Amino acid sequence: MIIYLGLVHYPVYNKNFESVKTAVTNLDIHDIARTALTYGVSKFFIITPDMSQQDYICKVIKFWMEADGKQYNRGRTKALSTIAVSNTIEDSVNMITTQEGKRPILITTTARQTSNQVPYDSIMEIANLKKPVYVLLGTGYGLDDKIHAFADYVFQPVYGTGDYNHLSVRSAAAIILDRMTSAVYKGRN
Amino acid sequence: MIIYLGLVHYPVYNKNFESVKTAVTNLDIHDIARTALTYGVSKFFIITPDMSQQDYICKVIKFWMEADGKQYNRGRTKALSTIAVSNTIEDSVNMITTQEGKRPILITTTARQTSNQVPYDSIMEIANLKKPVYVLLGTGYGLDDKIHAFADYVFQPVYGTGDYNHLSVRSAAAIILDRMTSAVYKGRN
Repeated sequence: MIIYLGLVHYPVYNKNFESVKTAVTNLDIHDIARTALTYGVSKFFIITPDMSQQDYICKVIKFWMEADGKQYNRGRTKALSTIAVSNTIEDSVNMITTQEGKRPILITTTARQTSNQVPYDSIMEIANLKKPVYVLLGTGYGLDDKIHAFADYVFQPVYGTGDYNHLSVRSAAAIILDRMTSAVYKGRN
Repeated sequence: MIIYLGLVHYPVYNKNFESVKTAVTNLDIHDIARTALTYGVSKFFIITPDMSQQDYICKVIKFWMEADGKQYNRGRTKALSTIAVSNTIEDSVNMITTQEGKRPILITTTARQTSNQVPYDSIMEIANLKKPVYVLLGTGYGLDDKIHAFADYVFQPVYGTGDYNHLSVRSAAAIILDRMTSAVYKGRN
């Protein structure tokens, strides 16, 4: 299964459910890149239309690609090489389509329950379609609903053992990739 | 299953495999507390013998327990209330023993493969022992081997789809709790 991952900074909700642009968090870059490489993600897109934020991401990546960072931690350098920066979700979809010769199946994630969401093991059927899969994660208070409306599938929220599910996007990314790949490669329910 | 979680800042390895004391990372406090509450963890111990580090943790928790933090994000306040600070691993084991009336089963985690490690679904058998389970996570380059030697069980490293498994402790905590509770409550392999 070919997996792409996207971390969206626009359009996402703030705490008043207004559609806004969020700032990039340094540890999102590191943690999610390391998770992405662990789970064989082809490319981890960080999506923001803000040029100063794009510059910031590039600066972080550059440090770890060059002598000092490389010498300090080669594992980190390898992880950050999975990152691509994109202006918009659409741009990243087009980049995947060009790379793979097929438009990816778009799956969105959310911490809120709505109708028509699919469980994680539905990825087994989706994998059978033999198309790349592109999973979008929202920052702030989650992806704007118009992104869910545009998606082919919306994953159910990640629940643990109770009602509380206010996970960080870094933790959610790790659990979602673990559940998806465990379903496809190990047949887990 | 009663689960306790501990994040160890001493004794852990640095990159030269010397046993050292690491500094507390702010996002470890937040991310792992949120994950702990999501997965029904009874208490999340942050273990450090360093008094200035303990002060720092208490300052972070205090902010989110008081008016400003509480008003900003009640979910965060609830998550941070699962935290306890402990000087040593032994102290935290004693606190659990007092609370539960039984010494917990100690399980350590590591990113390195060694002999005698157990898979995540072995937690199903462990849960049948009807004792609290205490899972330890290392910071830095992982727990000192003497902690593994002292443990009842050592979990196998978290692997995704390949050889690379340099996850952050925040991501590893999320995946490990998801695998453990999925095994016990949903019968996942």
